[in-house]
Amino acid sequence: MATKQDFLRETIEHYDLVSGDVVALVDAMARMAYSARDLHRAAQIYDRMLRDKDCAVILCLAGSLISAGLKKVFADLIRYRMVDAIVSTGANIVDQDFFEALGYRHYIGPDYLKAGMNDAALRELHIDRIYDTLIDEDELRVCDETTHKIADRLDPRPHSSREFIAEMGRYLAETGCKSRDSIVMEAHREEVPIFCPAFSDCSAGFGLVAHHAARGKEPKLSLDSAKDFYELTRLKIKNRETGIFMIGGGVPKNFTQDIVVAAEILGDDAPMHKYAIQITVADVRDGALSSSTLKEASSWGKVDTVYEQMVFCEATIAVPLIAGYAYQKRGWEGRPARRWNALLDRDQA
Amino acid sequence: MATKQDFLRETIEHYDLVSGDVVALVDAMARMAYSARDLHRAAQIYDRMLRDKDCAVILCLAGSLISAGLKKVFADLIRYRMVDAIVSTGANIVDQDFFEALGYRHYIGPDYLKAGMNDAALRELHIDRIYDTLIDEDELRVCDETTHKIADRLDPRPHSSREFIAEMGRYLAETGCKSRDSIVMEAHREEVPIFCPAFSDCSAGFGLVAHHAARGKEPKLSLDSAKDFYELTRLKIKNRETGIFMIGGGVPKNFTQDIVVAAEILGDDAPMHKYAIQITVADVRDGALSSSTLKEASSWGKVDTVYEQMVFCEATIAVPLIAGYAYQKRGWEGRPARRWNALLDRDQA
Amino acid sequence: MATKQDFLRETIEHYDLVSGDVVALVDAMARMAYSARDLHRAAQIYDRMLRDKDCAVILCLAGSLISAGLKKVFADLIRYRMVDAIVSTGANIVDQDFFEALGYRHYIGPDYLKAGMNDAALRELHIDRIYDTLIDEDELRVCDETTHKIADRLDPRPHSSREFIAEMGRYLAETGCKSRDSIVMEAHREEVPIFCPAFSDCSAGFGLVAHHAARGKEPKLSLDSAKDFYELTRLKIKNRETGIFMIGGGVPKNFTQDIVVAAEILGDDAPMHKYAIQITVADVRDGALSSSTLKEASSWGKVDTVYEQMVFCEATIAVPLIAGYAYQKRGWEGRPARRWNALLDRDQA
Amino acid sequence: MATKQDFLRETIEHYDLVSGDVVALVDAMARMAYSARDLHRAAQIYDRMLRDKDCAVILCLAGSLISAGLKKVFADLIRYRMVDAIVSTGANIVDQDFFEALGYRHYIGPDYLKAGMNDAALRELHIDRIYDTLIDEDELRVCDETTHKIADRLDPRPHSSREFIAEMGRYLAETGCKSRDSIVMEAHREEVPIFCPAFSDCSAGFGLVAHHAARGKEPKLSLDSAKDFYELTRLKIKNRETGIFMIGGGVPKNFTQDIVVAAEILGDDAPMHKYAIQITVADVRDGALSSSTLKEASSWGKVDTVYEQMVFCEATIAVPLIAGYAYQKRGWEGRPARRWNALLDRDQA
Repeated sequence: MATKQDFLRETIEHYDLVSGDVVALVDAMARMAYSARDLHRAAQIYDRMLRDKDCAVILCLAGSLISAGLKKVFADLIRYRMVDAIVSTGANIVDQDFFEALGYRHYIGPDYLKAGMNDAALRELHIDRIYDTLIDEDELRVCDETTHKIADRLDPRPHSSREFIAEMGRYLAETGCKSRDSIVMEAHREEVPIFCPAFSDCSAGFGLVAHHAARGKEPKLSLDSAKDFYELTRLKIKNRETGIFMIGGGVPKNFTQDIVVAAEILGDDAPMHKYAIQITVADVRDGALSSSTLKEASSWGKVDTVYEQMVFCEATIAVPLIAGYAYQKRGWEGRPARRWNALLDRDQA
Repeated sequence: MATKQDFLRETIEHYDLVSGDVVALVDAMARMAYSARDLHRAAQIYDRMLRDKDCAVILCLAGSLISAGLKKVFADLIRYRMVDAIVSTGANIVDQDFFEALGYRHYIGPDYLKAGMNDAALRELHIDRIYDTLIDEDELRVCDETTHKIADRLDPRPHSSREFIAEMGRYLAETGCKSRDSIVMEAHREEVPIFCPAFSDCSAGFGLVAHHAARGKEPKLSLDSAKDFYELTRLKIKNRETGIFMIGGGVPKNFTQDIVVAAEILGDDAPMHKYAIQITVADVRDGALSSSTLKEASSWGKVDTVYEQMVFCEATIAVPLIAGYAYQKRGWEGRPARRWNALLDRDQA
Repeated sequence: MATKQDFLRETIEHYDLVSGDVVALVDAMARMAYSARDLHRAAQIYDRMLRDKDCAVILCLAGSLISAGLKKVFADLIRYRMVDAIVSTGANIVDQDFFEALGYRHYIGPDYLKAGMNDAALRELHIDRIYDTLIDEDELRVCDETTHKIADRLDPRPHSSREFIAEMGRYLAETGCKSRDSIVMEAHREEVPIFCPAFSDCSAGFGLVAHHAARGKEPKLSLDSAKDFYELTRLKIKNRETGIFMIGGGVPKNFTQDIVVAAEILGDDAPMHKYAIQITVADVRDGALSSSTLKEASSWGKVDTVYEQMVFCEATIAVPLIAGYAYQKRGWEGRPARRWNALLDRDQA
Repeated sequence: MATKQDFLRETIEHYDLVSGDVVALVDAMARMAYSARDLHRAAQIYDRMLRDKDCAVILCLAGSLISAGLKKVFADLIRYRMVDAIVSTGANIVDQDFFEALGYRHYIGPDYLKAGMNDAALRELHIDRIYDTLIDEDELRVCDETTHKIADRLDPRPHSSREFIAEMGRYLAETGCKSRDSIVMEAHREEVPIFCPAFSDCSAGFGLVAHHAARGKEPKLSLDSAKDFYELTRLKIKNRETGIFMIGGGVPKNFTQDIVVAAEILGDDAPMHKYAIQITVADVRDGALSSSTLKEASSWGKVDTVYEQMVFCEATIAVPLIAGYAYQKRGWEGRPARRWNALLDRDQA
């Protein structure tokens, strides 16, 4: 009978955009058609955002991207000042990035598992599956417990997810980050804020529920998503030119687009996001936010239409090309470090 | 030149599952292939959930469903005790259902708008577009302001989104609900809890940001998503047999599936969701949560695999058939009213 | 060990649009959004084609539709004069419809087979799989052999696929059609031409290859796809107002759209197809013909844009609704029988 | 007012797999997830086919690939003996490759045209649109006329599409090929057979219809698709080990898979295709051939399951990576030239 070790053998390795060279490939796509041409244009828009020194770049992450081998790409975007704030689903940041920072890994699942016929057997072995990738569920429980510990360390008051994630960064700095390329760790170093507006919807949720139950009627930490929204909106007001690089849709897309309207509600006539690109395979015909075009967002006054581009390509292929192109074009050299965590923490104090 | 009134002329009308008759159609699909056969099986599983008197039914809503004409369907599911709790994106509940309860409407957009070529013009006219559907943005601002008022009415402490939405229901009861078929109003009457775990990610977010800014250093209401998670998990522990009817994926899907694990973390060995159906057109090959199969969820110990069915069909077509079938089969007759809002409020006190 | 009989137990049953009642359902979709609204409009356009007495209706079939339970729908469209010509992939007409007319059936496969993990076992048992549907391969071989026989009956000269299929109809009339609702048989009775422009790409191809090999250097029948094109173009010239009801894309879509241009090349200034609807889940972003919009076809001068509608819905759900609606609205009553087979055969002679 | 020249300004340029370097990128994908991992595996399988000296490689082309900038890729696959036979839709070979060989070009359309709002204007200007790419319709008419001329040059007997396309190659050789990288021209030089089993379904169809009409009762050329099937099957029998590299699905996929069965019908127990890869974004849930998995094909006895891989990625991105990888790995060096055209022509004589 197969054991856990039989399945958890070959680790996912993260793509390294620094060592590759994709500029010639992506430039050749400019004069092709369909997704190639769109991908080239998106890569160019990202490069343009980085060269526009007034423009702050917000990276939006939805979908299981870190488990898929894109962790180092995003860590490098932080390192090279190619991103100023991140809005993500909780899973990418907590269950996947922080999880690897605690020393755990994701594993390559054999192709036949995709079909779902062996999920009961995986269940028995405490292996969780993300399409073609495997996780040791017992290790994931340790991650849940660690978020419980972090919740216990914080003041029993409403926090933004950003504050919580900053504390996760401090925790890693103190206890030793076991991954060379952790987004949470790198964001800690560079003081880049990370927001997970649906923060209970991930491993951290389990830690928070446990914290909540353990505290009973005692004062306890709470996660205030309105505070997230307030903080990100303040950054928009502070730095009025913005560009967004969205991978997938979901809450990160909606939340980030919405800050333009929120700024207006706070009395600030902030401009629409000047640049916007989105990588997604979602089909526009279901009318949902994730698939909705950036043109549609302009009817809401959220995204300007001069520099916007959707790319129809699964992220593991598109991200290395778009982020790699922008890295290698080096338009990011000399970009200022915005270090927004420090700014927001001062506000808080 | 076109005016706002030129565009906002013909209203969306909500589908009425009570008056239709789809049983013969759906039953005929049982012995066809592809989506028809899957749809039939999903409809049967929903009927089976309702007949299983121990089973509590959780409805998950993602995608712009209310603006698309499905409001009365969900209001009726509450009325006829075909659902015991709802987990939704904020947009469905606040921007769309509550918005209509305030007396506003959604409008049918001409087909050519889908292409996105007129979004700048719509922007000028303060018209927001959802694919083929239009909204008066000025009316939406009133909705934002109303959520600000409601935030001001509540105690300056952490709330679950459920508590906030229950207050929205009370507000409608007091001020007069201007829609015959409001989900928020009906949930208020039947004490059905509604959770929006990413609550700041909608019109309510704008109200909450305004509240947050207006209160300054004064005590203020916060939205605690961990409390949402705690509350829904408590319901799972209270009523261990559960079935989920998911429309779209996103946070509602993940959040609801996760309560099985959260119950375990709280020391309760609650069983997996016994029944699960999902309507989605998302493609499994992007590895994202929204598209992930219910079989995959079983590797995580969240969903049992005996009665699960995905249906590949856009919701405006699939929901009338599946919900209509279950309504007309009348397996819901005699189901108990669980009135979980009252239960959770007592806990709170 | 499982036997063939274990798998081939429960037959596919064909949807009956005569007995259902979908008008109220489809009419309610008119004021919803997304696919529901599009589906309603497509149903209305089909009804309108039928009421336009000058308009000839061409039905295009791609995808495995007959094996999926839609055979009786198309047979009834012929019976009730709701279609004047059919352009199809070969599989629908030969491997599936003619196959059932020979007395064989399609079978419902258990859900787990979809995953493809048992295909080697099916191979051993001589069972062929179409997604969730099963076929006895030995019966399919009889179908191949029957097309060989039919090839042998015909003059050793170039034939259009229409001529060959008409002979298949005569063969059924002579030998006894074993299915109540055969498209080939019904088309024979009503003299409705059926074209399969890629005719060798199906069970008939196997029969033709066998005929070809057996004849050696002797005179043999050949299948002239240019003749198909010529014949269908002649019908367009003969009956200048046309509407097309397309299910799926592929060769039938392209071929039928092209006859407008072909008519022009033959010196006839035939108008574009006046009405066009297409049911497909193909994604427009791959730039392929199957997914290309009917608006794009208008740039080629093939389809007029006043009455055109794409519907994003898998065919087993959309066809019962659209065809059922048009049947029940009875706009087809009093339509003339065009009996084009007789016309084309006279030309030939 | 815009003129034709305003739109037809910037030409599509074809991707050059010789000059790029994608091996490091594609190799890095091996240990990622989702489409990246699948793409790597497909690239490896193609490389493996080329190193298997007994294996003949059949390339299948569906979708508008040549107009999209992939012409030089396929011409180079012929040049470097990375392909032994091609099965394609007619549009790629005649309307696009042969069209460019006559000296015409495809043009980059501005992004806003995709929406389809300007197709009536394009119609007026005799511009045809393929998603984001434009064609001068008057030039396309010259292409149609040239196929008419070629039909007139050939004996008035049934031809396979391969014979017709070989004649197109001879025509280019005689009259001067105006494109450096023509598939038809390169196939002529290397005697690589090209089959278009649905040959009337393209520009050639227009030429053939014109030929058919002009000849009247006189002897005329016909296009025998059964002969196509017979010829390709003979190649399978001649060279029993085969691998298929499929881009898109449609008739080329079905036709090529079917030759295994056809060989059996001709009394030869040819093995299944040993290697098979397919690039497609089609969704498996519609049950159609184009989207059907290669595992499903194995239930039909057509494709072996050891080395098969589907890749979910639009072709303009996937083809440069997969074909580029195989080119740069140089497994094709020393492959024999099979020169199958000569072989088949000898049979014919």
